Amino acid sequence: MSKAAQTKAFIIEKTAPIFNKKGFAGTSLSDMTEATGLTKGSIYGNFSNKDEVALAVFDHNMNKVNQIIQAEMSKHSTAKEQLLALVHIYNNSPDFLFPDGGCPMLNTAIEADDTHPQLRLKAANAIITWKNKLTSLLEKGIKNQEFKAIPDPEQIALTLIATIEGGVMISKLTGKLNHLRLIMKSVERQIRSLE
Amino acid sequence: MSKAAQTKAFIIEKTAPIFNKKGFAGTSLSDMTEATGLTKGSIYGNFSNKDEVALAVFDHNMNKVNQIIQAEMSKHSTAKEQLLALVHIYNNSPDFLFPDGGCPMLNTAIEADDTHPQLRLKAANAIITWKNKLTSLLEKGIKNQEFKAIPDPEQIALTLIATIEGGVMISKLTGKLNHLRLIMKSVERQIRSLE
Repeated sequence: MSKAAQTKAFIIEKTAPIFNKKGFAGTSLSDMTEATGLTKGSIYGNFSNKDEVALAVFDHNMNKVNQIIQAEMSKHSTAKEQLLALVHIYNNSPDFLFPDGGCPMLNTAIEADDTHPQLRLKAANAIITWKNKLTSLLEKGIKNQEFKAIPDPEQIALTLIATIEGGVMISKLTGKLNHLRLIMKSVERQIRSLE
Repeated sequence: MSKAAQTKAFIIEKTAPIFNKKGFAGTSLSDMTEATGLTKGSIYGNFSNKDEVALAVFDHNMNKVNQIIQAEMSKHSTAKEQLLALVHIYNNSPDFLFPDGGCPMLNTAIEADDTHPQLRLKAANAIITWKNKLTSLLEKGIKNQEFKAIPDPEQIALTLIATIEGGVMISKLTGKLNHLRLIMKSVERQIRSLE
């Protein structure tokens, strides 16, 4: 990596939890200089503006989440076990799974939907990618006769994502991990009901 | 209403959609003077600070949503029909239901969870109130033998809320109302499976 690429990566790494906790509008330049120990000139010598940092930070945060989910899913081979891996992850390690501040897709979705078209697009693409991945897994499970014929796998995929993300929101808001666990029990039951 | 109370109500009414769209951190004083046509002095003559406006705005936005849900539920008498009224509302009139910017509970939950303890508390109370209301409805339905015995009504209540709120988030993010409709079909199926 070039020196410039290293500095960029360092800025992304250090500001990622701040954007995820405070949001785009809530993160100030002084938050960024404080977190990195760099001057304003150095930050804006490497990025043209706050938007460019925020967009790179979103990718960074999503990659972390996706890598953990991917690693857990790849331990299993059947569609059912891969879907149940999601339950395992969200039940046992939401704090480990997420960067500080919780699910970056959810946080960015809510802040950016009315305010920041580029960030909104990134969050929307992340949801669509996830929906397509779960739909493919469900279709694979139907083809391999792990699951019964499901009239609309996309509907199930969207419902699983909605329930998980809603559960993350409720649990983080109320501070009760038990709320997420109860909701993930329902997610598990829904996956098992497809058999 | 006194003149001061009228001015406060006017400021709340005019700034409510802005806080709901841009969030607490994203709403500036100039947004507030522009929306109301009032001076900074007049706004801060009626509220001690932006926090006080935001807290009043949250109550205002939640009241609007609750009134519409309450009005729709009160058309029905059985627990099952009252729960299904939720499906009807979110399927047919999410734009009518919500103030500009979408669900104020969801928006406030995500922004405030790491940044604003007072707003966070208000959003958490709104979720807990909703959870208790749905739990009571489920218990009423079990008592009246509309529903079979459910081992954990609170779990079902949390799951319904998580799925609905997740559905609102996804649909608003992707811009596809059809996503919300598919997710609400699953909510309806879950309610009917309790019979």
